[in-house]
Amino acid sequence: MPDESGFFDLVGNVRAMRRLKPDSIPEALIWKVLNAGVQAPSGQNTQPWKFVLVRDAAHKGWFAEHYAAAFESRFGLIADPEQRGPYKTTGQLGALYHQIDHLHEAPVILLVCGKRDWPFKVAPEDRIGLAPPNYGAVYPCVQNILLACRALGLGAALTTMHQVFEEELHAHFQIPESYGVVVAIPIGYPQGNFGPVTRIPAERQTYLDVWTSDEE
Amino acid sequence: MPDESGFFDLVGNVRAMRRLKPDSIPEALIWKVLNAGVQAPSGQNTQPWKFVLVRDAAHKGWFAEHYAAAFESRFGLIADPEQRGPYKTTGQLGALYHQIDHLHEAPVILLVCGKRDWPFKVAPEDRIGLAPPNYGAVYPCVQNILLACRALGLGAALTTMHQVFEEELHAHFQIPESYGVVVAIPIGYPQGNFGPVTRIPAERQTYLDVWTSDEE
Repeated sequence: MPDESGFFDLVGNVRAMRRLKPDSIPEALIWKVLNAGVQAPSGQNTQPWKFVLVRDAAHKGWFAEHYAAAFESRFGLIADPEQRGPYKTTGQLGALYHQIDHLHEAPVILLVCGKRDWPFKVAPEDRIGLAPPNYGAVYPCVQNILLACRALGLGAALTTMHQVFEEELHAHFQIPESYGVVVAIPIGYPQGNFGPVTRIPAERQTYLDVWTSDEE
Repeated sequence: MPDESGFFDLVGNVRAMRRLKPDSIPEALIWKVLNAGVQAPSGQNTQPWKFVLVRDAAHKGWFAEHYAAAFESRFGLIADPEQRGPYKTTGQLGALYHQIDHLHEAPVILLVCGKRDWPFKVAPEDRIGLAPPNYGAVYPCVQNILLACRALGLGAALTTMHQVFEEELHAHFQIPESYGVVVAIPIGYPQGNFGPVTRIPAERQTYLDVWTSDEE
């Protein structure tokens, strides 16, 4: 029987962990994490996910370099540490810079891919470019992966900045066009401590029977 | 500390439960479930979800009626039990017919809404109609809700058939245009037993470093 209290302790304690140790992860734990992922539900049990488990140093280096460049081009972060000048090393910005500088050292960068799928509401004549990946079908799997990492004491964080260079990413990792890369998750033992997250309580996000606020 | 074994027992045991008892659920459990939901991560902690908790009999009846009609129009299921003639009452089809016929009796129908958001890759000139809800941001919350239900012994199942009548749904429940209804989750104590799900093992869904199959 599932342990009720254990789950609720776990679910409120899954902070994004961006500072990881380079220590390798036992292979068995990786499969435990990914097999928790695939337990997720999907419409008509289509299981439209695939994983690319990146552990090779050269491939991680390639990803890290493009990731840093994407942050520079999108958010104005400075990829080269020597060009940065003084900056805050704590908080969200400090954690992002740390992640950029050390991403290649993470023992695993997991690419979670999702089969591309047009929602039935988009008529063929309205379709532009490639279909998006089936986000709704893949994210329950992603959430299971994050929870499983936490249960095993592994640090992980969702990243989506690879979307900036998804074409090169597809070419580099030979990912077919029929799949999109939904998230990239660096995984490793955390440097810091796990802790609770800050969230608006559900009671303030809920309407009873009918939406009654004026919020638009 | 989270209990490792408890989580892995739980995550592989979250079957979609479509046969629910009409018995009411203690209010405290509902908030426990929804507060597990809001612990999910979201980009820059935007928490773009809202819940409409439908417990009123007339509102549940309205939803159930439209839901059955949507299944009839989309999948050729017959909404009126008296018109059905002989049909299989077991398996997936039996469970769907049971759900259609008894949906109004579920103690709770939870509508999980997501803030509409265009992905940055869709240029303004390419936008057609309303933006989709931010699926990626809402589904981790949905998965937490399913796991929390399971941990508390509550049956639940994802449904998305409401998309067929989403316009009327918005009008009926006064949901603003700025939010889409991502999933509807009937929740109640289950009539049957929980059990493991059938999934392709992660080992067969994973490529090491580079995607190597010919699958398109």
